[in-house]
Amino acid sequence: EIVEELIAHLQPKLLRGRRVLVTAGPTFEPIDPVRGLTNRSSGKMGFALARAAREAGAEVTLVTGPVHLRAPRGVRRVDVQTAQQMLEAVLAEVEAADVFIAAAAVADWRPAQAAERKLKKDGSGAAPTLAFVENPDILATVAALPRARRGELYCVGFAAESHDLLAHAQAKRARKGVPLLVGNIGPATFGRDDNALLLVDEREAVELPPAPKITLARQLVGEIARRLGLPCEAD
Amino acid sequence: EIVEELIAHLQPKLLRGRRVLVTAGPTFEPIDPVRGLTNRSSGKMGFALARAAREAGAEVTLVTGPVHLRAPRGVRRVDVQTAQQMLEAVLAEVEAADVFIAAAAVADWRPAQAAERKLKKDGSGAAPTLAFVENPDILATVAALPRARRGELYCVGFAAESHDLLAHAQAKRARKGVPLLVGNIGPATFGRDDNALLLVDEREAVELPPAPKITLARQLVGEIARRLGLPCEAD
Repeated sequence: EIVEELIAHLQPKLLRGRRVLVTAGPTFEPIDPVRGLTNRSSGKMGFALARAAREAGAEVTLVTGPVHLRAPRGVRRVDVQTAQQMLEAVLAEVEAADVFIAAAAVADWRPAQAAERKLKKDGSGAAPTLAFVENPDILATVAALPRARRGELYCVGFAAESHDLLAHAQAKRARKGVPLLVGNIGPATFGRDDNALLLVDEREAVELPPAPKITLARQLVGEIARRLGLPCEAD
Repeated sequence: EIVEELIAHLQPKLLRGRRVLVTAGPTFEPIDPVRGLTNRSSGKMGFALARAAREAGAEVTLVTGPVHLRAPRGVRRVDVQTAQQMLEAVLAEVEAADVFIAAAAVADWRPAQAAERKLKKDGSGAAPTLAFVENPDILATVAALPRARRGELYCVGFAAESHDLLAHAQAKRARKGVPLLVGNIGPATFGRDDNALLLVDEREAVELPPAPKITLARQLVGEIARRLGLPCEAD
């Protein structure tokens, strides 16, 4: 614990004076007052990134979906439930940011309408069918902002894939229009304390081998700091 | 903390020598390797009941869906994800139980099939439609077991309703075939440390006013102990 505190304190201040906005966790998309759609994200990677950015001297805001984690010391926390709420919170905060790290596992879809009352079994054995609508794409929305296009806001995306990680990460980087995309094998990493990352930028793909998420977060903060000042354009 | 330990220690041993099986938490019904359907249950009420039963001298097994709570001291914990897994765990444990308390918020439905690979947006903006099938009814299944019908296994159900609590609780008690049904206003209580309960048996409806969940759990354990020996039949 004391050693960990010391290590944290001794991190190089690579982001001193920078303002970093991080998203973390899953979103929860209501079906009715009690049920909803979510995913296995624990928020640990996003929280580790917020902590690593803070250790590196940045002023950090963390927008998080429902998780059971305490915010790192010195980090401002904004709690949200749905993708729509996360987008609104991010747009409210991002104007002041120099770096945006989208580590949240945002639901791609939400139920087309949430029922005001709890859905009941009707005794027929027939189950409901649920129609979905696409959620806003938070990362792509932010990456399309003028400040991001001008390179004043550096955008980092995450991809959780169950297969073909490199191809999906490269395609996602181009599609979202971000300079740096970080891939991790979702089902294997969700909820765990360690992880392995694949960094994809316009030139190369670099693997960060399995390590505790806080170690990877510090490495990633180093990679981001090194790239700051480059334009936030994918292609 | 010490006072709380003392209070726990001084609880009357109303369930000494009894074996109690409790379910708690939500279930998580996979849609694909990362996404799933769940609900807002925190598991706190079920964990409080397991603790209260243990304090009352019972041998307690707790079958729980994915929650972020530590098992009460002296309670055996079995972790599950889906309703199907919870049913299997309950059926494996319930033969040895004298009391079954179904406090879990089990998903009524699960996706008709879980995708082996993560569902991807196809770029068309079209969202998927999800078909559901009904999950097994754990409480009704247990209440229909011969030992329950003979009154050797006392079954307690829970109802989380967003409206018309009394009517729903009475109807659910009859439908499930259990002697005691406990209603709580789901959306208002999920995740909170306090709660209010409505106990419905064949004779009456009794309200336990708002209190910390552990207080309510101790009261409920008292109510159950008082009723033990009565036949486990609703009608």
